[in-house]
Amino acid sequence: MKKLILSLLLVSTGPLAGNSQYVNPFIGTSNFGATHPGAQYPNALASVSPFNVAYGGDLNKFEKDDAWNSRVYIHENRFLTGFSHLNLSGVGCPEAGVMLLMPTTGKLNLDAREYGSTYSREQASPGYYSTLLDKYQVKAELTSTLRTGLSRFTFPKGKSHVLLNLGLGLTNETGASLKIVSDQEIQGSRMLGTFCYNAEDVRPVYFVARFSKPAIELGAWKKMPAYKNVEADWISYNDSIKPYADYRQQLSGDDIGAWFSFDTQENEAVEVQLGISFVSIENARANLQAEQPGFDFAKVRRQAVAAWDKLLDRVEVQGEQEQKTLFYTALYHSLIHPNILQDVNGDYPLMGQQGTGNSKQNRYTVYSLWDTNRNLHPLLSLLYPELQSDMLRSAVAMAGESGWLPKWELYGMETQVMVGDPATPMIADSYLRGIQDFDVAAAYQAMVRAAEQRDNNLLRPENADYLDLGYVPVDDEGPYDGSVSTSLEYYLADFTLAQLAGALGKTADQQKYQRRAQHYRKLFDPSTGMLRPKNRQGQWLTPYDPELGRNFEPAPGYIEGNAWNYRFYVPHDTPGLIELLGGQHNFLQALDATFDTGNFDMANEPDITYPFLYNYLDGQSWRTSARVQQLIAEHYGNHPAGLPGNDDTGTMSAWLAFAMLGIYPVSPGLMDYALFTPSFDKVTLHLNPDYYSGKTLVIENQQKNSNSNKDVRIKFQQQDIERPFLTHQTLVSGGRLVFY
Amino acid sequence: MKKLILSLLLVSTGPLAGNSQYVNPFIGTSNFGATHPGAQYPNALASVSPFNVAYGGDLNKFEKDDAWNSRVYIHENRFLTGFSHLNLSGVGCPEAGVMLLMPTTGKLNLDAREYGSTYSREQASPGYYSTLLDKYQVKAELTSTLRTGLSRFTFPKGKSHVLLNLGLGLTNETGASLKIVSDQEIQGSRMLGTFCYNAEDVRPVYFVARFSKPAIELGAWKKMPAYKNVEADWISYNDSIKPYADYRQQLSGDDIGAWFSFDTQENEAVEVQLGISFVSIENARANLQAEQPGFDFAKVRRQAVAAWDKLLDRVEVQGEQEQKTLFYTALYHSLIHPNILQDVNGDYPLMGQQGTGNSKQNRYTVYSLWDTNRNLHPLLSLLYPELQSDMLRSAVAMAGESGWLPKWELYGMETQVMVGDPATPMIADSYLRGIQDFDVAAAYQAMVRAAEQRDNNLLRPENADYLDLGYVPVDDEGPYDGSVSTSLEYYLADFTLAQLAGALGKTADQQKYQRRAQHYRKLFDPSTGMLRPKNRQGQWLTPYDPELGRNFEPAPGYIEGNAWNYRFYVPHDTPGLIELLGGQHNFLQALDATFDTGNFDMANEPDITYPFLYNYLDGQSWRTSARVQQLIAEHYGNHPAGLPGNDDTGTMSAWLAFAMLGIYPVSPGLMDYALFTPSFDKVTLHLNPDYYSGKTLVIENQQKNSNSNKDVRIKFQQQDIERPFLTHQTLVSGGRLVFY
Repeated sequence: MKKLILSLLLVSTGPLAGNSQYVNPFIGTSNFGATHPGAQYPNALASVSPFNVAYGGDLNKFEKDDAWNSRVYIHENRFLTGFSHLNLSGVGCPEAGVMLLMPTTGKLNLDAREYGSTYSREQASPGYYSTLLDKYQVKAELTSTLRTGLSRFTFPKGKSHVLLNLGLGLTNETGASLKIVSDQEIQGSRMLGTFCYNAEDVRPVYFVARFSKPAIELGAWKKMPAYKNVEADWISYNDSIKPYADYRQQLSGDDIGAWFSFDTQENEAVEVQLGISFVSIENARANLQAEQPGFDFAKVRRQAVAAWDKLLDRVEVQGEQEQKTLFYTALYHSLIHPNILQDVNGDYPLMGQQGTGNSKQNRYTVYSLWDTNRNLHPLLSLLYPELQSDMLRSAVAMAGESGWLPKWELYGMETQVMVGDPATPMIADSYLRGIQDFDVAAAYQAMVRAAEQRDNNLLRPENADYLDLGYVPVDDEGPYDGSVSTSLEYYLADFTLAQLAGALGKTADQQKYQRRAQHYRKLFDPSTGMLRPKNRQGQWLTPYDPELGRNFEPAPGYIEGNAWNYRFYVPHDTPGLIELLGGQHNFLQALDATFDTGNFDMANEPDITYPFLYNYLDGQSWRTSARVQQLIAEHYGNHPAGLPGNDDTGTMSAWLAFAMLGIYPVSPGLMDYALFTPSFDKVTLHLNPDYYSGKTLVIENQQKNSNSNKDVRIKFQQQDIERPFLTHQTLVSGGRLVFY
Repeated sequence: MKKLILSLLLVSTGPLAGNSQYVNPFIGTSNFGATHPGAQYPNALASVSPFNVAYGGDLNKFEKDDAWNSRVYIHENRFLTGFSHLNLSGVGCPEAGVMLLMPTTGKLNLDAREYGSTYSREQASPGYYSTLLDKYQVKAELTSTLRTGLSRFTFPKGKSHVLLNLGLGLTNETGASLKIVSDQEIQGSRMLGTFCYNAEDVRPVYFVARFSKPAIELGAWKKMPAYKNVEADWISYNDSIKPYADYRQQLSGDDIGAWFSFDTQENEAVEVQLGISFVSIENARANLQAEQPGFDFAKVRRQAVAAWDKLLDRVEVQGEQEQKTLFYTALYHSLIHPNILQDVNGDYPLMGQQGTGNSKQNRYTVYSLWDTNRNLHPLLSLLYPELQSDMLRSAVAMAGESGWLPKWELYGMETQVMVGDPATPMIADSYLRGIQDFDVAAAYQAMVRAAEQRDNNLLRPENADYLDLGYVPVDDEGPYDGSVSTSLEYYLADFTLAQLAGALGKTADQQKYQRRAQHYRKLFDPSTGMLRPKNRQGQWLTPYDPELGRNFEPAPGYIEGNAWNYRFYVPHDTPGLIELLGGQHNFLQALDATFDTGNFDMANEPDITYPFLYNYLDGQSWRTSARVQQLIAEHYGNHPAGLPGNDDTGTMSAWLAFAMLGIYPVSPGLMDYALFTPSFDKVTLHLNPDYYSGKTLVIENQQKNSNSNKDVRIKFQQQDIERPFLTHQTLVSGGRLVFY
């Protein structure tokens, strides 16, 4: 909180009228949250973040190459090596974190191990970040637009430099090229890919950078390979950085960069714009020209703040400032991915192909759907249906281009990370919620392909077994296949497909997929009460330890979790599961045991709906409120470690946003929200008239003692409601939901 | 010889009427000759050579990274990893040898360590090379134009591939980029530079390659870095080659390549054109379009043969075929460098700058002037003054662009290799020989700058000391500076500058530089009879071992040699040196001793004029003939080891050419040729009418027993000549020179 207050006090030039003033971008920058505190425009392709995960010895607690690290910035780290212009927020694998600008002074040093610096006086707010680089006494300020970044470096008097490092980066892909176009401009490309270390696809990101004043000296550099034998004796730059002064040709290599040097007066600012594109250098230049025709830091920053306010002001809350910070930061983190991919002229890289498409609507990218189909997209559907609409169109367009809907799509590449068939739940759910201005026929066709194709099925590689057996058998499972987990995802996908089929009047399909969705029962083992791995012959996996996988170690049947984490993961048929488990009493005991034995993981997706399952048990919905309040207090906070773990491209934040509103979508494809005590005295949601009523939904908490949940009653439009659920359609008609 | 005969027998499609039929491109491919047997067009920018210096274990006797290696092809090696499209001939440092095409079959393998192959049935003739790759049973045939290569790969039936490796290369510079433009075309660039391991300058060479048929599969690859720690456990292509199937974007990196795959019928040929440019990809494409508008292997080869014949037919010789092979191969090797640099549209990279120039004449590059000023350029001046003219213009243009004449110029980069100020001798000598259609005023100005600038003198870094003392003192000498060697080069440069000044009527300058050229006397030590290192105080270096440096070990005062090798290296004043050494008798004894004690090095430049010094001694010129015949027999031959050592961009070959003609230019700036018994019964030189008489110079050897040199007499135009010298002006008037 100290940091935020500092920020609010010191940052006086920005307009702070809107709700963006409550956002603390440092939340999630510790505890593996994997968010970054840099300058970020809503759903933007570009962002500019401090990069402090390379080198630094003891100054950096986590070094990017010493661990599985998906973060460009870690709050505990102290050694900064630049400001990166393409950054992912809350992903689990190293990627992007490239095109690093670094201001330095004095004798030119091109080795990031040496030119890095500690830093102080950090400030961050939406669309703005600043810090002081201790070693150089250079103030660095960052802001950004959709496709460009802008850095303002305020130098002391003397010899000053701005380095652009194209070798260093978070991604494990290497390779770049550059060309210094003039003493104020440089262009080039940087390879990306190898996502999660294994993905095959790669792409270059293209860039054009412009300086606000001409360099008096400039050049490019290249790290030379390590030569051996007699060559090592002779070569003058063996395994070291070779400078090419005033070099103006094409330069390519694994580890290259460029420097621009200036004679600066005391407190003289040099600004650097950097525009990016996934299509071409020409498009990167056009993006830069369109979004930053001149150098105007204050204006760029104002535009970013205005864009954030426009989105964040759609929800008004009354409550403590600390709570507001948690809530609006959660919304902020929910509005970073998916992000737009297309250039200002509409060009974007085709999905799974090498060509270029053109779109009049926003073309989105960065779909981490295993994470986000459960709550992030329902949150966007409720609050920002116009964004979700373009996200649906983009996903359907991807199927048109590649033949398949996305699973974990990144910059037009299908990275194939995680399991299941998660685009179907996202699309069907949105359609059912009322976002229908997309090509649902094409979407349905692509969903059916994923559901039906037996072999070479990109989304459901185990589909033949699944179709034959009604489950994915554990027999041939690899260490990260998770036969039970995968089956459960397929059941959910099939359920949502059935719901969509129903909505589209495809009754036969509806029945077929509804049947399939019930096959989860084949994996229910009455003897353990678990959804248990089963082999092709129908025998349960033995020996069997439901605790195995609790610490993310490989566990047969389960991915990223153990049997407990998946025990209730049939969100589309909780009543059926209650029955299977022997009724409400047994279910309650099992649910409580999950929390009480430490087998609930707030930081991962399969079980994050569990706190809301109490609503299905007669008279137990107060336990939902209690669990939710406890989990928020325990796992969330206004500090860098204030997320339960990896934000999963906004999923953990979306959980918090719903949890603080007092409503939670029970399952993709089901329109019920579970209702529970909200965190605010009053919430007002402005419902988009293009999709919903255009009215407001007001949620009020009139309880005297909010810690006592047992006596809470709920009324909507002044009518008491008995079941602690309301449908999406009801809520988006507008009205007053009161907890009292 | 066996190889050549094979070649002549098997190669039946080329026109063999001209003298190119006698050339054996395998000469110089062993014994460190550093020539290549590949397809070579006269003075061409591009060439295509087999590349057999990488990997291969015991199959390769010399591996490029295990030694100081300047060769793309070594005859003893057996493991071939491709065909390179930019190759230097007879240089002493690793450079170029890049853009390697390799045909393979069967399962795709992208690792050169594994896809390399032994080979057999090698054939080579001017503009043509072929071999059979044993592992794949693919016949590879190469031909080339000025700026493009053409490879024809004849495959067996089945799955066939052509790989383009942009990582592997002889150069120690790394970095490349590529883009697959279509299923028949690829473009990109490859970094060059770091010449002799130390040169700072780098350049990209750009290329466009086209295939004669569409690939059915294609892709690019990249060698991934070696990751450590936990990343090494995770990354799927750690320190190994990662394939990117069907990749069509920009790809950059240190070690990248591309593959094109085909289904081939038995004996189906796939041809690949590759055009290069030092300016841009667009120019590379234009070069390719201009020089190879379609695929016509026979035509391209015919054009190369015709171009060679046109040059080689300027000299006709009568004699044994073996002797013809030695002679015409020597001419062939003398016509490879300098080579043209400009694109078909005239564009070329400016010298020592980043921009592009445009030239209507040929712009030459690869000036290894320490080597070539002594005999290669005099040979070109005599036989091909039109080529030498453009070489002069190019050198003078370089001074206009960079401020300095070239020393060891490579693709527009001054590599600063070797010592002295060698452009001045080359230019002055050519002017005096009658090649005057260049800007001699600009040339003179640049020469004077080198001769006069005390500090920061790029060509004469030791000029301040030289001007003050009359010699370069040994005091602060680095291991490869050679204070005596450097002084001797400056004396020669000053002498040639004096001669030019005289021709231009600049009498004061003439006298000044003539005086300076006599300062060699300051380094003559009467006590040892050597040109001996001296310190700043004028004291001789002590202790002193004139043998030191004989095996190329660092020797104070001398570079690439010992005191003996430099003992007579005052070619501009041999009579003066004779006097200093005590007269003709003593000089004869010293000269004989040099040969008899093994202190003559046929493979290096400073002493290669020594065999002709006997002509300065009354009645001893027969010893020149004897020495020359002995040296030819000992060091030259029609076999791969048939050069005395590194060809030094044609210098060793130019020596042989002159030596076989029976004339040798005694010194740059002096117009005398020493005369001695030629190797042929009759030689006819066609003198270029644009520069000379347009008549013929006939040299006849009418001696009955050519082994007896003592009784030989010489007449020119039927007049006996007493002194065994004739001037250039006399010879180029045409006439008959008879040894009888």
